[in-house]
Amino acid sequence: MKNLIIAQSGGPTVAINASLAGVLKQNKISNTFGTIYGSLNGITGITNRKFLDLTKAVSEDEAFIDKLKNTPAMFLGSCRFRVPTEAENPQFYEDVFQVFEEKNVGAFFYIGGNDSMDTVDKLSAYAKSHNKDVQIIGIPKTIDNDLVHIDHTPGFGSAAKYVATSILEIAHDTYIYHLKSVTIVEIMGRDAGWLTAASALARNEYSKAPHLIYLPEKPFDLNQCISDTKKLLETTENVIIAVSEGIRDKDGNYISASEAKTDNFGHAMLSGAAKYLETVLHEKLGIKTRGIELNTLQRCASHIASETDLNESMNLGATAVSMYEKGETGVMINLTRTSSTPYEVTYGCHPVCEIANAVKSVPDDFINEEGNDVTDKMLEYLKPLIIGEADQHYKNGLPSYLNVSHLLEN
Amino acid sequence: MKNLIIAQSGGPTVAINASLAGVLKQNKISNTFGTIYGSLNGITGITNRKFLDLTKAVSEDEAFIDKLKNTPAMFLGSCRFRVPTEAENPQFYEDVFQVFEEKNVGAFFYIGGNDSMDTVDKLSAYAKSHNKDVQIIGIPKTIDNDLVHIDHTPGFGSAAKYVATSILEIAHDTYIYHLKSVTIVEIMGRDAGWLTAASALARNEYSKAPHLIYLPEKPFDLNQCISDTKKLLETTENVIIAVSEGIRDKDGNYISASEAKTDNFGHAMLSGAAKYLETVLHEKLGIKTRGIELNTLQRCASHIASETDLNESMNLGATAVSMYEKGETGVMINLTRTSSTPYEVTYGCHPVCEIANAVKSVPDDFINEEGNDVTDKMLEYLKPLIIGEADQHYKNGLPSYLNVSHLLEN
Repeated sequence: MKNLIIAQSGGPTVAINASLAGVLKQNKISNTFGTIYGSLNGITGITNRKFLDLTKAVSEDEAFIDKLKNTPAMFLGSCRFRVPTEAENPQFYEDVFQVFEEKNVGAFFYIGGNDSMDTVDKLSAYAKSHNKDVQIIGIPKTIDNDLVHIDHTPGFGSAAKYVATSILEIAHDTYIYHLKSVTIVEIMGRDAGWLTAASALARNEYSKAPHLIYLPEKPFDLNQCISDTKKLLETTENVIIAVSEGIRDKDGNYISASEAKTDNFGHAMLSGAAKYLETVLHEKLGIKTRGIELNTLQRCASHIASETDLNESMNLGATAVSMYEKGETGVMINLTRTSSTPYEVTYGCHPVCEIANAVKSVPDDFINEEGNDVTDKMLEYLKPLIIGEADQHYKNGLPSYLNVSHLLEN
Repeated sequence: MKNLIIAQSGGPTVAINASLAGVLKQNKISNTFGTIYGSLNGITGITNRKFLDLTKAVSEDEAFIDKLKNTPAMFLGSCRFRVPTEAENPQFYEDVFQVFEEKNVGAFFYIGGNDSMDTVDKLSAYAKSHNKDVQIIGIPKTIDNDLVHIDHTPGFGSAAKYVATSILEIAHDTYIYHLKSVTIVEIMGRDAGWLTAASALARNEYSKAPHLIYLPEKPFDLNQCISDTKKLLETTENVIIAVSEGIRDKDGNYISASEAKTDNFGHAMLSGAAKYLETVLHEKLGIKTRGIELNTLQRCASHIASETDLNESMNLGATAVSMYEKGETGVMINLTRTSSTPYEVTYGCHPVCEIANAVKSVPDDFINEEGNDVTDKMLEYLKPLIIGEADQHYKNGLPSYLNVSHLLEN
């Protein structure tokens, strides 16, 4: 029986460990692989020979898979390592496949985003051209939701739930004062506006926040934003604006105050779109403004994970095992939405070479004509992805996550 | 039977509506008051004659009290209004007590922080000196935990739970890369360090984050912070530092980069302690640094409220009703810890004149000698306050809060 090496890469999400959990759970049922090795810190764990025996971890702790599913970021750690081409560094490939042989590996699964899919593409091409009997399979994740050939990416639904919940809570916080104000909330997504768009899910029968939404897919016009806000203030006391961190003007310059600012010690100071608009809108409108940057919590707040997201991520992991059994390689596991109401998806895979270097931006018909809001089509797309609350366990009042002390050893 | 007017003031917390819910629930049992009027936007709702009939709301919707308990910020809105002294503006007092008379009011309850307790003090003194038969009672709240004559303040426990959960999740997010880094997390509390201290609750058997904690009670020495961090980096790859937004140097200057910075348009830009330390520590240590400002969510994230906090807030509201029955006036309802293990509190009240203009800072023996951490005494004090998860209801994947459309009407 062959073994499996699995690794995680790229930026954290709330669902990336759920995909790993899905692989482990499926293998418990199917007994496809003998040992599942977790490579620490992405693919660098292979060449550094740093592995965790995950099969052993599963057998020693009954709760391991469930806790793993609910733990944020990467249980196996990540890396920032661009895999060279074979022409650049043939030795790298020889080393990796040497380890595959030593460990009697039948497959390598890489859970990650765009860059990781590029690694999957390169390794699978190498295996093919050198007749190596190792199947290379990618399992997607990214809060940015910008991968092609998949309806939406694991991790996005939970980030969307965090963003929408935050906007709703900020709205309650904002509505208490009987005076005109503008609150600008900055959301992650430098090139794709999906996560900023998810702020629209916060709207309900009493709150229309966010009242304006600006995505990076459309050039940001400061004057238009000022006049949009002014107009709203005629009928609405507290205007809440959602902006992507990546909004740019028509010349492609980021809307931020990062240039030419130094403090008294000569340190360059960075400041994002929300802080910038807080200052400019205060000057132009003469009312209270407040910039809020939703921080790292967007991608690591497991305490408010979407159950739909975690379950789908588990299923994608399980599907990787069954696609291995079908002999697939050089593919990314994906999901296809077959129906929105009721919400239904099917699982499969797609050649990774068509995914690795492409980006899925928000399409035109998901953004309104004025470029300051999303359309109903976007809302229909987003709604099912945040449904359900993860079954989080607590200990001493805090979420009880899996011990990651192995990441802290030198 | 007399009626009650109740109002809320100051900054939002997650528990301020729970105290209101506690009053309503208790009155359902005790029938102490005929009608309970909610004054909109603090005390200004009295002079503006803007009221909600809360007795009616309770009788019309069985779920009202429970939903109110779990809704963030102020259901009745807040105000920024400093109550004048009688000498400054006797008319104000006459107007307020005129409304009390019109509405056959036996008591006014004000839920708020320090400033609101000052209002309670002034109104009760006026009632006494003018022989008005209206009892004025304060119900405390503040995430800052800086009121005296109370073991801890409602709203603090939930904010502490949010802060500790966030630090734990940020730690998971940070540990994934195998490279040296410093993350600085800025936490609310300009003058009192209680909430920043609560970050220490995030520590567990595998994570020592935050590795350093700086409170506003001790002068902040930048060189000491740099050397503290350097020393830690010898044994720890990823150092996480919790700082209060209010840290100041020995001369009382805030550690922030708010001075002398303007963008290209001449706008003054503000930047807090975390952003400042991100820049300085990066320069001094030459490694990756990241500043994270925990934002407004600290005080409005009902989705991660502490059950202990919400239940105690309900009990404080209920106690206000029974203290009214006992004839108390010019008091703030409080709680006293009678035991930490097992955790037990009793409810009572204290003369508000001894509370209104005092501040409870973190005592010396709750901070370590080096001034870069808290002591076990602090941890013992904090631990019980975050226990239990609020029974939050969800609808369409988002927390289901009470409709606050009455706050949005002009």
